[in-house]
Formats: sequence, structure tokens, C-alpha cells
Amino acid sequence: MYRTHHCGAIRLANTAEQVTLSGWVSRTRDKGFMVWIDLRDRYGITQLVLDQERCSADLLEAARNLGRETVIQVTGRVIERDAKNASMPTGEVEVLVAELNVLNAAKLPPFTIEDQTDGGDELRMKYRYLDIRRNPVKQNLIFRHKVSMLVRNYLSDQGFLEVETPYLIKSTPEGARDFVVPSRMNAGQFYALPQSPQTFKQLLMVGGLDKYFQLVKCFRDEDLRADRQPEFTQIDCEMSFITQEDILNTFEGLTAHLLKAIHGIDSKPFPRMSYDEAMERYGNDKPDIRFGMELSRLNALAQHRDFEVFNSAEYVVGIAVPKAASFTRKEIDALIDWVKRPQIGAKGMVYVRYNDDGSLKSSVDKFYSEEDLKAWAEVTGAQPGDLICVLSGELAATRAQMSALRMELASRLNLRDPKVFAPLWVVDFPLLEKDEESGRYHAMHHPFTAPKPADIELLDTDPSAVRANAYDLVLNGNEIGGGSIRIHDRPTQELMFKYLGFSPEEARSQFGFLMDAFEYGAPPHGGIAFGLDRLVAILGGAETIRDFIAFPKNNSGRDVMIDAPATIDQAQLDELHLQLKPLQS
Amino acid sequence: MYRTHHCGAIRLANTAEQVTLSGWVSRTRDKGFMVWIDLRDRYGITQLVLDQERCSADLLEAARNLGRETVIQVTGRVIERDAKNASMPTGEVEVLVAELNVLNAAKLPPFTIEDQTDGGDELRMKYRYLDIRRNPVKQNLIFRHKVSMLVRNYLSDQGFLEVETPYLIKSTPEGARDFVVPSRMNAGQFYALPQSPQTFKQLLMVGGLDKYFQLVKCFRDEDLRADRQPEFTQIDCEMSFITQEDILNTFEGLTAHLLKAIHGIDSKPFPRMSYDEAMERYGNDKPDIRFGMELSRLNALAQHRDFEVFNSAEYVVGIAVPKAASFTRKEIDALIDWVKRPQIGAKGMVYVRYNDDGSLKSSVDKFYSEEDLKAWAEVTGAQPGDLICVLSGELAATRAQMSALRMELASRLNLRDPKVFAPLWVVDFPLLEKDEESGRYHAMHHPFTAPKPADIELLDTDPSAVRANAYDLVLNGNEIGGGSIRIHDRPTQELMFKYLGFSPEEARSQFGFLMDAFEYGAPPHGGIAFGLDRLVAILGGAETIRDFIAFPKNNSGRDVMIDAPATIDQAQLDELHLQLKPLQS
Repeated sequence: MYRTHHCGAIRLANTAEQVTLSGWVSRTRDKGFMVWIDLRDRYGITQLVLDQERCSADLLEAARNLGRETVIQVTGRVIERDAKNASMPTGEVEVLVAELNVLNAAKLPPFTIEDQTDGGDELRMKYRYLDIRRNPVKQNLIFRHKVSMLVRNYLSDQGFLEVETPYLIKSTPEGARDFVVPSRMNAGQFYALPQSPQTFKQLLMVGGLDKYFQLVKCFRDEDLRADRQPEFTQIDCEMSFITQEDILNTFEGLTAHLLKAIHGIDSKPFPRMSYDEAMERYGNDKPDIRFGMELSRLNALAQHRDFEVFNSAEYVVGIAVPKAASFTRKEIDALIDWVKRPQIGAKGMVYVRYNDDGSLKSSVDKFYSEEDLKAWAEVTGAQPGDLICVLSGELAATRAQMSALRMELASRLNLRDPKVFAPLWVVDFPLLEKDEESGRYHAMHHPFTAPKPADIELLDTDPSAVRANAYDLVLNGNEIGGGSIRIHDRPTQELMFKYLGFSPEEARSQFGFLMDAFEYGAPPHGGIAFGLDRLVAILGGAETIRDFIAFPKNNSGRDVMIDAPATIDQAQLDELHLQLKPLQS
Repeated sequence: MYRTHHCGAIRLANTAEQVTLSGWVSRTRDKGFMVWIDLRDRYGITQLVLDQERCSADLLEAARNLGRETVIQVTGRVIERDAKNASMPTGEVEVLVAELNVLNAAKLPPFTIEDQTDGGDELRMKYRYLDIRRNPVKQNLIFRHKVSMLVRNYLSDQGFLEVETPYLIKSTPEGARDFVVPSRMNAGQFYALPQSPQTFKQLLMVGGLDKYFQLVKCFRDEDLRADRQPEFTQIDCEMSFITQEDILNTFEGLTAHLLKAIHGIDSKPFPRMSYDEAMERYGNDKPDIRFGMELSRLNALAQHRDFEVFNSAEYVVGIAVPKAASFTRKEIDALIDWVKRPQIGAKGMVYVRYNDDGSLKSSVDKFYSEEDLKAWAEVTGAQPGDLICVLSGELAATRAQMSALRMELASRLNLRDPKVFAPLWVVDFPLLEKDEESGRYHAMHHPFTAPKPADIELLDTDPSAVRANAYDLVLNGNEIGGGSIRIHDRPTQELMFKYLGFSPEEARSQFGFLMDAFEYGAPPHGGIAFGLDRLVAILGGAETIRDFIAFPKNNSGRDVMIDAPATIDQAQLDELHLQLKPLQS
């Protein structure tokens, strides 16, 4: 037996008991006649003590020489501390060591195992097993487990069944790029790893399972942007005989349950907003509504003077930045530089200081009177002391720029409080979006999403105007879930594939099984999928998902710890009927 | 709103309520003036009724024409049935239909959606979404969900953390064949899908997580035997600062919890048996101990006469088959043919009838006296009325043959009662097994298993004799779990790789990250993995795993429903830097 207690378990009530503990040497303090050791395991830290009077010289010497992270086992008596430490649960006691047994030695770690470490990202990834020993990472993984259990038990209690869908499925060119898996037994053929279990969960509905969920790994072979992983986890859900309203209520219930269980927050009912409204008010389909600074269209108020920049613009938009009239010229110039960065892409920014004394001063005073500016202030809701920022240009691009500026200003002004949680349903998404390059329409959600029945006739005349029964759940400016009511009959699904540019043969060869299934009594159904990695990160008050994944990959899709991917044997390639293509210069 | 109640919900107490139900038309009975419909959903069946007096002619006509599996919605009043059906929970009531709405039509299914279907295996797989509507399959999936939730909640309550390990890892030639995934971003390199998260869970222990579990998909590209799947699910577990005893107790706890929760059975404590004892008594390392027929070595009693077959054999073994002396000559001949089949491979079988009158009659009376046979009966424990079956030959092969014969006879004699659950720990497995062809030693469990400290010195002199701290959990003759105490220091792990024929370079390139990790303070650790598919099947009283998997693959590794694997585009191959090898004639 390696231990009688964990390192976080011993209290004053255990005084005088003999205990055995095992763990890692976290820190040693040596006063010559006396040595203290902080012994650490997953559950906490217990202070060990050895001294000249009560321990043998050999034992004291052995303790003195223990390197950090050495794995030891000790047996001793629990004693009350003279100097108590109220900040740790075991802080009233220490263990007077009688026996010490080194279980495993440890080399000096490449970075310190402390809450604030000196290790850089790549080093921490390479030695992830050491990084996990650090409290913040360990607590994130424990938190993820807790959230996953809460999700599973809540959904199971609501009658959902977790069903495992296959990982070795079929590649479909639609959507993102698949990872594929060559088949040895079927020469020249490949499986694909699922981007989501979409078609399988729909087939489970056709199969009558009524309520399905699964915490499931999904795979996308995309060029990795920051904070994207080639493998990620979804909370994947589907229900039958439901309307959009049923789904929103069910998963509002789940999300509210998590916020209550984790943060003690009552969050129901969640506000709802149409996609069009979100775009108009926030320039974004996943608005952070923890703060204001809503977008105001200024075309009518700004296009009647001689300022050509505005007059020629499709869209002129302003926001009132609270208490920012006091920004220095230098701060404002920096902001203008920020919006002009290629990542944002604005041509410039007009600003108006609404001074505390009620006067208004702008960067375009040549063109606009104070009366004009007052009207802008009224529309944007600016108060004395605020700064009005104005951008202009093509609608979609300018909205995106203003949305980015709004988020940036909120960060600078500390308006994005990680302790505040503001969920929001965004509904009535467009069914299709046009790819400007190819001129083709793509499914905004996916090709299985049902158009709103009232809009179906617009498919031929005005495809962009067709709305879908599709919805996103947004939390603090992040899309944490998205879903839709599905098509459940063959003719509509065939029509949709046609509008998406599939030939009948392509549609049949890729999704024939699903359309066949729709002919054997498919119930009305719909669902939603949450990104678990991001959900956990946001609930944990963090911004990046990587620290909530045990073994993440870097931005080149590599696991730098195990050094994967890697070359494989020629024999393996032969068995798979493959050869590498010679690299071209 | 599609429904006010499920189809399994309505009771006598609901009489006179107006309800709305949705579901599938399971069956229609038409008496001319009256039509009954069994409306089915996941939760049950509710009888609908329509008649001339209380329904319009149009409604009655519409109901009459509903095909099987049509999806409908009905609204009506709950009424008490005249002829009650006590065998169904809703059997006291029916719904008098006032409105009927066809939600989706259905073609005639290719097989009947009944508990006993007329569909063959391939047809059921192709239309798996219809197969899932059948009660037995649906109940299996619900049962699997239940077992998974029980496992997760039990382990979580015991302090285990579920941690997700990566699916895109590195290929290692050791063990079974990997499925590989070509990397687009790293030309010429491949990920592999995990055969198990073995090294990652060990790294989590090095990371101090102390208790880990995961229900996780694993992948093996093996030639599929019956009832094997290329992707399967493990309950994967690992613990730190534990001995073998701790692991056996913990997972005996889990298994006993399942048996109690599911079948109300108290099963603790589980018997334990060494590998050597299991082989000696049952000829098998996963003995079914629900019945006797233990193997008895007859060498001493059978090799002193002139019967050359026995005299020249390494091993002569007998079992007493209860109450089988009455087998006819024809039945015994059939049994002899059975053991001589190539799959079993015995040369023949000697038998002794121990008649009810106490006389003994054998197929080798020419060589053995009744006194001799009496001695055989004594050793095998045969009673009057039993049949003694004797096989002989090389030890390992003959054991395997006798073990197969024992199981076959138990099946024929109905001794394998699916309602009886007999768990058993088999411990002290050999560390290595010799591959007779190559003469090389392989790890019996895997290369990370620790030898018993007392046996390490035998590694050089008698490798086969080295035992490991490795254990299997056996349930009703099936291995449902297996694990070991792991090596946790670099020198022992290097030694093990050396004995397994790895060069130092191979060991380093494949498992360097693990051996590095062992140098930074690795705790003593060990674990176990259960095969969830099989565990669920056995707990469900079934023999094959396929019916407990939502979308299984066939014996060629194909999903016949979605038709995967399949060819992929040339563009995909190009992006992956691959080309297909021309097929050779």
C-alpha cells in the first residue's frame, strides 16, 4: 500500500495518527537543523517536517538531498503546526517523517512546476506531462471532466440516449476537408474521419431513437488558425417530433443548468435575436451583449454634406464608446492604425469627441457642423464624455470592421468581464450564402438544414433571402452551439442538393443512403451541436481552448510531444496499396 | 407542438383527456366499421381507434389507407378500452381519433419491423435505420447507454477523471496493425489511429492526474474474425500509487456495481486464479466457471498400457461430462467429428461411458481394464451416468482442443445459463510469449507491463517463466477486461524493449517520449481496459457484439449502409501527396 491518505486530506483531527503519503517533492526548505518538504499530489500539498532532535541524521540528510519532482513515500505522525497556514486546507498540520522511501528519481524539469511557469508554449507542449502537473492545467482538465459529467447526466435525465456513431465513414467533398484513412482490405478505397456525426444522428432519428446525444471527437483537415484543432469534441444532439421552439427550450435548459451548477448563476430566459438584427446592431452573428456600443447606421445623417468618403459609401456606421472622449490624440491615432491593419482592413476612421461640457469636436469639422454631430450623438446614444467612432464603406466589410473595433475597445475598456455570462440565441439564419468568387451558393449551416416553409418559393428568385430554421447559441461573443431543423423528405433534400450545385448522381452517390432513409418514414427532426472545447474554456473564464485539452496539437497540426505525424514503413504503404508522390521542386 | 404525450405514457388516469401523439403506424386492423391502429414510438405503443359512429367517413377512410411505418400525428380523446390488454402498459386505454395528420409517408420496408424479423443480416445492416426501430435492437442501444452512464458515474464518484486523449497519434509497428491517416500539411507523413490510449494514459499518470478513465474508440486494422470490429470501444483506466491488489479491488467494485444495478446480483468477492491454474484446470486463460467439467491430466493413469496414441502424447487429458453416458453412438460419433474439424484439430477422441449401474465401457477397452477406467473416473470426478472424454497430444494444442470441447458440450447441455454471471480474476500471466515461427518473444499483454520483481532475473535464463503483474477479468468465459502494473522507470523499460527485439534506436524513435517522461518523476502506476462492446453484450445476456453497436461494419470492414470505404477524388490524393499503386495481376 502506497498511502493511507492523499496529500490534500489530513486535518487537525488526524493529529497523532500515523499516516503514509506518496507524492512529488514540490519544494524543500532547509534550515540546517530542520527540513520542510511540500509533498504534492493531485489532491493537494501536505507539509512534511524532519529535524535533528526527532529524526536520525541519515534520514535528515536524505530529505535534504531530495530534488524537486522526486517521487517519494513517507510514513510519520501527524502533528499540529506551530506556524499555521490558513490559505491551505492542510495548513494546520504537518507530518513528522519517520520513514522516507524514494519511489522514483527526477531530473530537473525543463520549466518550473508552478502556477506561473517560466516555460514557453512549445516547451510546455513538448513536456505536456509536466505541464499537466501544474495547478492551472490540472484544474482545467478536472473542470472539463466536471462539465462533461454535468452535460451527460442532464441530457440522460431528460431522456436523451448517448449512442456511439462510427469513426470510419465515407468522405464527402462538401464542407471542410476530410481526413481520410486508406483501407487495406479494400484496395484503392478510403474511409474518412467524421467532421460531425450529422448523417448518422439523422439516421438514428429515422430509426426512432427520438432523443440522441454524444460527446464525440470530430475531425477537420483545415489550415489551422490560432485556437483551432484538427480534432475537437462536440456535444452532438438530435431530437424527433420537435419544433425549433422545443430545441431552443431544451438546450437553454442544458446551458442554464451548467451556468447554475458551475457559477451559481440564474440565466433563464435567454434573449433571442434574429440574424438580421444581430448584424444590424452588432455587425456580427455572435454578438457579445455584455456591453453596449451598438452599431448605428449614419447614412441619412452623414451623406448630405460634401464629405466624399461618406457620400460614396454604401454604409456609414457609428458607435458611442463610453467615457472615451478623454482618449489622447496619440491613443486615437493608435486606434486608427489598429483599424487600418490588414487584418481589419478599414481605410480610416472618423471620430467625434463628445466633451464633458457638451461641446462636440470631430476629425471632420470641415464638413460637419456641431448640429450635425449632435444628431450623430443622438442616434448612437453617445453621452457627454463619450467618443463616437465612425467607419464607412461596403456594407459587409464595414460591419466586420466595426464589429472588430467594438470588441477591441471593449477589451481595452475592460467591458468583457469573464465573470459575467451573457447567453443569446441568434435565430432565422439565411439558408444559403453566396461564394462571391465562384458565384455558387453554399449552405450556411449544412445541406440538411430545412428552409423556412414560407420562404421556399424564394429559392428560385432570391436565394439569399431564404431563411432557415437555423439557430446559434452565443455566449459572451462566442458561438458555443449551432443547429437547425432538418429536411426530412426526399424531394426537399434533392431540391436542396440541386440548389447547392450537386448533380443528381453526385447527390445519390454521396448521400443516397440518407435520402433512401427519408422514404421509409422519417420523423420531423432537428438538433444542435456544441463545441465542447470552447464551451469548457468560456465556462472556465478563459479565452483559448488549448489549455482545456490534455494533449493539443500545434498550429501545424503536430503533436510535438510524441512527434506525430511521422513517416511509416514501406511495408505499411505497400499493404495499403499506396505510394508517396515524389516531391516536386 | 407535435405531441402532448409519448406513445408509452397514457394510462387509465388520462381518460377523457384530449391528447396529441406522433409516431409510426406499426399495425392497422380494419373491421370495416371500425379501424384500430397501433401507433409506435421509442417509448411504447398506444392503440388508436376510429369508427363509423364517432368519426367522419373521410377520417376513417384515411386511417384505413395508412401503410405500415407511415409517420402520423393524431389528436383525440383518451377512452377506456372494452377489451383490455394487460401485457402492455397502455393496454387499458385507447385514443379515439378526431384529427389525423400524415407527417411523412413510408415505402414498404424491406423487412418487417417486428421483434422477430424476416430480414437477413446483410439486409438489416444495409437498412440499419429500420433495424434500429425493432425493439430488440433499440433496447440494446438503450441498454448500452445505461451501462455507459453507470460506468461513468461510478468511476467519477470514485475520483476518476475522464480525460480525452488524441485520436491522431503516431504509428508503432509493435502489436496489431494500425490504421493510418495521411497528413496533408506534413508531406509524406502519417498519423495513426490509436489501438488504445496506452501511452497517453501513462503520461497522464506521470502528469499526476492519479486516476484516469475514458470510454474511448480504438482501432485495429486486423483481418476480421467473426464478431470483431475494426473500431471498438474501451473503458480505459489507469491509477497511480497503487498495487495490483488496489486495481483488482477497484474494478471488482465497478463490475459488481454493474451486476447489482442491472441484474440485482451480489457477486463479490470475485474468485481469483493464477494463469497456470486456469490453464491446468480449464485449458484456457478465460475459463467459464459457471459449470464444472474441469480438465484432469491422465498421463500417469493412461500411459502404462500398450495404447501408443496415449503413450506417445505429451499430454493426456479427460473431462467428465455430466449425465452424458446416455449419449447415443451417433451422438458420440458426431462429437468425434466435431473435435476433428480443422477449426479444432484433434486427431480423435477416446470416451468412457460410466453407466448408471456403475460399469464402465470405453472406446479403448482393448487397452484398458475397467479398473484403469475407474481410476480415470476418480481423477476426472465422473459419477455414474457421466461420459468421460479423453484427448491427447502436444500440451498447448490439446488443451485448446479440450477447452473448445468443454465449451461446446456445455452449450449442448445448456450449462451456459445467460442469467448466471460468474466473474473471475485470472492473475500472474506470463510476461512474454514465444512466437514459434520467428523464435522471438512478444509481450503477452504489451511492452509496458512490469515483470514481477522476483522474476526479473529469469529474463536472461528462462524468459517464458517470467511472470507479470498482469490480470484479466473474465466473465462467463469471456475476457471482459485486462491490465497490468506498468514499468515506470527508464532502465526497466529499455531492458524490456531489448528483450522484445527493439534496437535502442527503434525504442527511442517510437517510445522515446515515454521513456523521457519516466525520468521526470513517474509514479508507480497500473491500469486496466474493458472491452465495452463485449461487456455490454454479455451483461445483456447476448453472445455477439454486433447487435449492441448502432452502426457496425461487416466482416470485410465495410459499412454497407453508407457504402464505405469508397474511392476518393484525385484532387484529394494530390493534396495528400499520395498516389494509388497500380494493382498487380
